[in-house]
Amino acid sequence: MSRPVRLAVNGATGRMGQALLGLLRDDARFELVAGITAADAPLLGSPIYPGTDGLRFTHDWPAANSLDVVIDFSGPAGLGEALDYCESQSVALVTGTTGLDKAMQDRLADASQRIALLRAANFSLGVAVLKRLLREASAALPDWDLDIIEAHHSRKVDAPSGTALALGEAAAAARGTTLAEAAVYAREGLTGPRPFGTIGFATVRGGDIVGEHEALLMGQGERIELNHRATDRSIFARGAIEAAHWLAGRAAGAYDLDAMLTERVAR
Amino acid sequence: MSRPVRLAVNGATGRMGQALLGLLRDDARFELVAGITAADAPLLGSPIYPGTDGLRFTHDWPAANSLDVVIDFSGPAGLGEALDYCESQSVALVTGTTGLDKAMQDRLADASQRIALLRAANFSLGVAVLKRLLREASAALPDWDLDIIEAHHSRKVDAPSGTALALGEAAAAARGTTLAEAAVYAREGLTGPRPFGTIGFATVRGGDIVGEHEALLMGQGERIELNHRATDRSIFARGAIEAAHWLAGRAAGAYDLDAMLTERVAR
Amino acid sequence: MSRPVRLAVNGATGRMGQALLGLLRDDARFELVAGITAADAPLLGSPIYPGTDGLRFTHDWPAANSLDVVIDFSGPAGLGEALDYCESQSVALVTGTTGLDKAMQDRLADASQRIALLRAANFSLGVAVLKRLLREASAALPDWDLDIIEAHHSRKVDAPSGTALALGEAAAAARGTTLAEAAVYAREGLTGPRPFGTIGFATVRGGDIVGEHEALLMGQGERIELNHRATDRSIFARGAIEAAHWLAGRAAGAYDLDAMLTERVAR
Amino acid sequence: MSRPVRLAVNGATGRMGQALLGLLRDDARFELVAGITAADAPLLGSPIYPGTDGLRFTHDWPAANSLDVVIDFSGPAGLGEALDYCESQSVALVTGTTGLDKAMQDRLADASQRIALLRAANFSLGVAVLKRLLREASAALPDWDLDIIEAHHSRKVDAPSGTALALGEAAAAARGTTLAEAAVYAREGLTGPRPFGTIGFATVRGGDIVGEHEALLMGQGERIELNHRATDRSIFARGAIEAAHWLAGRAAGAYDLDAMLTERVAR
Repeated sequence: MSRPVRLAVNGATGRMGQALLGLLRDDARFELVAGITAADAPLLGSPIYPGTDGLRFTHDWPAANSLDVVIDFSGPAGLGEALDYCESQSVALVTGTTGLDKAMQDRLADASQRIALLRAANFSLGVAVLKRLLREASAALPDWDLDIIEAHHSRKVDAPSGTALALGEAAAAARGTTLAEAAVYAREGLTGPRPFGTIGFATVRGGDIVGEHEALLMGQGERIELNHRATDRSIFARGAIEAAHWLAGRAAGAYDLDAMLTERVAR
Repeated sequence: MSRPVRLAVNGATGRMGQALLGLLRDDARFELVAGITAADAPLLGSPIYPGTDGLRFTHDWPAANSLDVVIDFSGPAGLGEALDYCESQSVALVTGTTGLDKAMQDRLADASQRIALLRAANFSLGVAVLKRLLREASAALPDWDLDIIEAHHSRKVDAPSGTALALGEAAAAARGTTLAEAAVYAREGLTGPRPFGTIGFATVRGGDIVGEHEALLMGQGERIELNHRATDRSIFARGAIEAAHWLAGRAAGAYDLDAMLTERVAR
Repeated sequence: MSRPVRLAVNGATGRMGQALLGLLRDDARFELVAGITAADAPLLGSPIYPGTDGLRFTHDWPAANSLDVVIDFSGPAGLGEALDYCESQSVALVTGTTGLDKAMQDRLADASQRIALLRAANFSLGVAVLKRLLREASAALPDWDLDIIEAHHSRKVDAPSGTALALGEAAAAARGTTLAEAAVYAREGLTGPRPFGTIGFATVRGGDIVGEHEALLMGQGERIELNHRATDRSIFARGAIEAAHWLAGRAAGAYDLDAMLTERVAR
Repeated sequence: MSRPVRLAVNGATGRMGQALLGLLRDDARFELVAGITAADAPLLGSPIYPGTDGLRFTHDWPAANSLDVVIDFSGPAGLGEALDYCESQSVALVTGTTGLDKAMQDRLADASQRIALLRAANFSLGVAVLKRLLREASAALPDWDLDIIEAHHSRKVDAPSGTALALGEAAAAARGTTLAEAAVYAREGLTGPRPFGTIGFATVRGGDIVGEHEALLMGQGERIELNHRATDRSIFARGAIEAAHWLAGRAAGAYDLDAMLTERVAR
């Protein structure tokens, strides 16, 4: 598009919403049309950018023909409202809202027949690229041993991380198996030799590490290490903004970050 | 194939030849038919596997219909003889001989219209995979800064390594540029800010490091590190054997490791 | 001490001052007595913690007997005022002010005969520890090759970083040489074999990397990698606070972070 | 010493013995006086360096006054014979023989009152240095979270490695605790937040990795990674040779690699 992409943020007063608004302030590719929040949000009516006289947090959706795309990080109820609006106005929708029930998932599938809809559980572009690379390497080197190490801050309460599991699933699929078949989640004591074809996981916890994932493919005399390091949670907002820019103006359909990356790579 | 692949090694008494023969001894996928060496090689006539009564190093090529594939690491003259044989017998040829003149390069191109011919300058499968991954990541994340670090033993006399340059070229091509345009080979003193779109190189030298290459793609708040570590020079022989297994029985054509990997990934 | 350490921050409205105040807010080991700033600072008179009714930024130094230690990140003029106060009141002083002329350096040396005074150019505890470890490893493995890699964001305008040079100097001293003798700042083209005893530097630039330093000690068949990664600039404020806690109540003298670490290690 | 150190290898036909002899062949600091092996060793009487006319594997210990030091990797019985000889001749002894019973341990303690005796379970100098560094860093940064990752080849049957445990014990001692108190050997599922003061272990298995150990000390906004990579098993022979060179001519006593390193560092 030659003009800026007209965009609204839904869930604008939340942590992700605020991160999105912070980044959008200096991004000339976009025109921010609205920052939408719940009817009972404490910041409702306050200026989006404190100390300025411009947009205020609102619960009202914009008039017809004023938006190209909505980014939603609001929650299931907010997502329902965003869908109402986007479907009625033929506006593209990027959503990172999680914890959806079956009804909402069906509704999203249905909506994607009428609008361009992009969903992701993790909007880090780096993680999305790492998953592609790991899939390719796992298929290209099918007999190399694969382990996945992840590191997070000391407050994280489960292991391995969801992203580590998603990487493992991608690799397992590329090798024609599943994590249920292949995963070894911990090694301690008399483990015996490494069973061929397994995918091992190892976990580091400490400090304030935002999130790191490393896939090691180990052959004879050589190995490959694929590493993603996140140092700032802003990456999720950055990825959602890239997705919104890519999605605006696109034909109806269900998209994900991988679709965007496939197009970039094919170019 | 259900029977073992029938194979000859040309340049069998050289360092790569010996490494190939060592690995082939325990590889049931192959039947070693001949270890061919120069007419004046000191080991001519000695047993290939000392202390055994089997094959001896020879300068004679096998009879008709006894080979599926030849692996050649002999030198330009030996490669010429291998080509004579393979073309006349319709046998596939894998060659890692380097330092070829224009006439030999033309001859290889011509021969590839009649036999399956696979060439590589570096037979490490890991490096070949890393190159693919770097190409993909460079295209998928076009605005992330890219630097390539390589480390080799203290006796290496040039920098950066040929493999680092080949990786840089692959990444540059994926971004629609060239190393001549984009490369920054050293940083020292008042460099100014990093010019956007450049590809930086950094070199480590020390100890007996066999060879390590790391590509760093650096974004805002996240980065990806793609790392290949070689710990044993046997990887080149291993890669050539994988290539021979893949090439045997294939239609005429000019192949490289990337073609083999593309097929693996597509499967 | 059983009661909290009574502390003032000088240069309180600057970037480091603000970082210090942010961390001190939740640190029960300290009682913040004053946030001191220049007489013409815009924030003079505003509350230190916006929205609270407590301390305000001031240009007045506290009354006698109300402080144990001052942390100064103010600049040469402010440091002069801090010294006046600390000497007259026998208060310990931690300072990270840089760019001092000869007269001020002499004055600091002189003051350290009457008060406890700790100076550092880099208050990261991790970097201070890395320097100790590198000194030790360089002496313990005198014939292993040493290279230092550093990585910083794309806006950094010089190479190698000051911290990389400080690490190199520490290692050179531990081996009885100097960087002027031993340093190799870049490798490009036909370098020849690595000269024994040199210390090589390699530089990575990209993204928003806060600062990473790796020392590689490379032997035959093994190597050691010592790596410091900074992900947040708050580490400098954290280190200054640790230093202030350690310095309060100590005898007159010129101290640095290494002295604090030596005491910790000896315990 | 100005003349070469006169040395015998006990257990000379074993894997470690052969590695020692290979390295000693080109080491002008030493004069190899004897390669001693069991009375029933198959190679007894064969030349130590095949194709040469020099020393042969023997079961006879050298004449009086012909040795400075013995390196023993023979087994408990051979070690007993080496002790007999070294005590009677006042020769220094380096031994890596393991699996000793209480009686032999007592005998070694007793012998060290009359001869210089150096024992180690792992003769890698790099690992010995890493242990020192980790001890120091753990004491210098007592509130940083510590995890230890180790990686070994796919045939290793237990986890974590003995070296990882030894590193963990060293770190625990430096922090005034023990592994029994502090160790967390695996993390899987709902682990809860990381308990303060614990030392976590993580294990990677794959390929033919000789052995890698990484200690991560993780603070707020920064971390330190201490990494040892072994790429060749010759490092154990190299370390034993360094130890023998250091031990020859030294006063009676019980030494270890750490004592040698302490002297190097103090110099």
